[in-house]
Amino acid sequence: MKHFITIKDIAKELDISVSTVSRALRDTYDVNKETREKVLEMAIKLKYKPNFNATGLAKGSSHNIAVILPFITNYYFSTVITGIQEVAYQSGYNIVLYVTNDSPEREIDIISNLPITSLDGLLVSIASNSDYFDHFVEVMANEIPIVFFDRVANNLETSKVLQDDYNGAFEGVEHLIENGYKKIAHIAGPDTLTFTQNRLRGYLDALHKHQLSTKEEWIVHSGFSQEDGKKDAELLMSLADRPDSIFAANDRKAIGAILYLKSKGIKVGEEMGVVGFTNDPSSEIISPALTTIAEPAFEIGKKSCELLLKHIERKNFHPQEIVFPGKLIVRESSSKTI
Amino acid sequence: MKHFITIKDIAKELDISVSTVSRALRDTYDVNKETREKVLEMAIKLKYKPNFNATGLAKGSSHNIAVILPFITNYYFSTVITGIQEVAYQSGYNIVLYVTNDSPEREIDIISNLPITSLDGLLVSIASNSDYFDHFVEVMANEIPIVFFDRVANNLETSKVLQDDYNGAFEGVEHLIENGYKKIAHIAGPDTLTFTQNRLRGYLDALHKHQLSTKEEWIVHSGFSQEDGKKDAELLMSLADRPDSIFAANDRKAIGAILYLKSKGIKVGEEMGVVGFTNDPSSEIISPALTTIAEPAFEIGKKSCELLLKHIERKNFHPQEIVFPGKLIVRESSSKTI
Repeated sequence: MKHFITIKDIAKELDISVSTVSRALRDTYDVNKETREKVLEMAIKLKYKPNFNATGLAKGSSHNIAVILPFITNYYFSTVITGIQEVAYQSGYNIVLYVTNDSPEREIDIISNLPITSLDGLLVSIASNSDYFDHFVEVMANEIPIVFFDRVANNLETSKVLQDDYNGAFEGVEHLIENGYKKIAHIAGPDTLTFTQNRLRGYLDALHKHQLSTKEEWIVHSGFSQEDGKKDAELLMSLADRPDSIFAANDRKAIGAILYLKSKGIKVGEEMGVVGFTNDPSSEIISPALTTIAEPAFEIGKKSCELLLKHIERKNFHPQEIVFPGKLIVRESSSKTI
Repeated sequence: MKHFITIKDIAKELDISVSTVSRALRDTYDVNKETREKVLEMAIKLKYKPNFNATGLAKGSSHNIAVILPFITNYYFSTVITGIQEVAYQSGYNIVLYVTNDSPEREIDIISNLPITSLDGLLVSIASNSDYFDHFVEVMANEIPIVFFDRVANNLETSKVLQDDYNGAFEGVEHLIENGYKKIAHIAGPDTLTFTQNRLRGYLDALHKHQLSTKEEWIVHSGFSQEDGKKDAELLMSLADRPDSIFAANDRKAIGAILYLKSKGIKVGEEMGVVGFTNDPSSEIISPALTTIAEPAFEIGKKSCELLLKHIERKNFHPQEIVFPGKLIVRESSSKTI
């Protein structure tokens, strides 16, 4: 990892105090010309970059952190940001917000043009189809710590904060099985995302444990919107061998599915079980109310920010991976006996 | 206004190109040691602050704008931010996000501690009970422009972007009257907010136009949450002289009211009409679906940011007040003949 020259290095080389170096660079009245020139020469020799983390020179930090994520107009992400904001505010940090619109191109563009000298760290949830991570590596090479949350870049050696997607999915599907459903479909997210893969694994393993099988055509990968959920449900209902229930990768897809099923006169719960993932407020508003796995979005935001602050404060802080358990919330959409 | 030394000043003094100065400061391979030393010396002499507004040096601005608002976990505000973000991104501006949690104290604390030298302007939606605006005046005195959206500080001479709260409310209430409702209640927001006052006026004037009266007890002021809507509906239903319909200040309150009415076996639409304001996605999810006034939240965000950029670019740009019309969206909750 690259070592950035600090004023400490200059002080050490010249055997003078850090404070003198700092004052020489700031050209204060009490530093003589000779010292100033020596400091300047050494700064050039060591390739010291005076613009690095400039605003925070005195404090050693800019107190700005960037939050980069696909969307903010959904409950999960806006709640995560609220958690981040809460910790940042208490600690005197500002949040610089970047929205990728779930586009890998915009993500790369944003990261490549970050005002890196005025940022202390990054909190990132990657775009759905991101498979290129060099731009993150470059940021980290500049000694700017990154903490990933929810949608993480797997291979990077940095802290990550996640919900337990595997166990949440397992529990949700097992709940359907215990309620008498046998032909369980899964409407999933894009298969490039780790959390989508983990929810799929949880689904498959729950079926396996209970000696139930699935069909390739019962596993549908698409986007995360309500509209995607509607279309996925339409596709499943058009099959010759229809499933009797749906485990959805998130609540918006589940709600789209329920709205489609209702529009076709299919009784949700009784005829078709539906389980979601998130515990979006809409899951209580829809009728029948949606059974789901609650994600601790606010806690995930808080913990991500806390970890990032630790990385900022201690250069050698060891990366951690924190996994929050989900919580099954049983409502009406998964009951055969409404 | 303070003149900040830029690399242009260094270039001019040394009679070399701006690009050479920039490369010298960045210590690129193609600048020789002598030039680098000269640039560095001049930078010190002119008290050039390389840390100041680093990204915007060339353009003479920091390219950061602060967005300060009560919440982000609701559909309206998160959609407004998405609109702001869209314009900011296209114009190369960063968004620094501050959430007041609707607390006037936190709002004052945030504004008083803004990193004002690294901000070009502010986009603000004030907290519900803010009645003290000196902190905004101080920001404006520093020649940092402010544009208010949705929840505005009335007396300040600056651009404002709003939806047409008065006419939207008028239209929503007139729609209830035309559908045969005669005893129309209003569950309102805090009476300190201008937009709440405007929606109340629209409600009163629509009743007046149609020679209908209201009662003091049919107008309930509380907060904006679903829970507030539930409680307001419970209060209205406990009256000896019950209303036959509710105009709610926003969709979350309307949805809370509908959930309460449903829980008491009251048929929404047929027995009790309900009209909301916002067109939150939940308004389509609830059954019966909610009639509402759609607010152009994304457009409000875009326009607010566009206006702010004009203020930033032209110091003498005249403040504008932009009012977007709402749009009545008729669904099931306001129909007596479901």
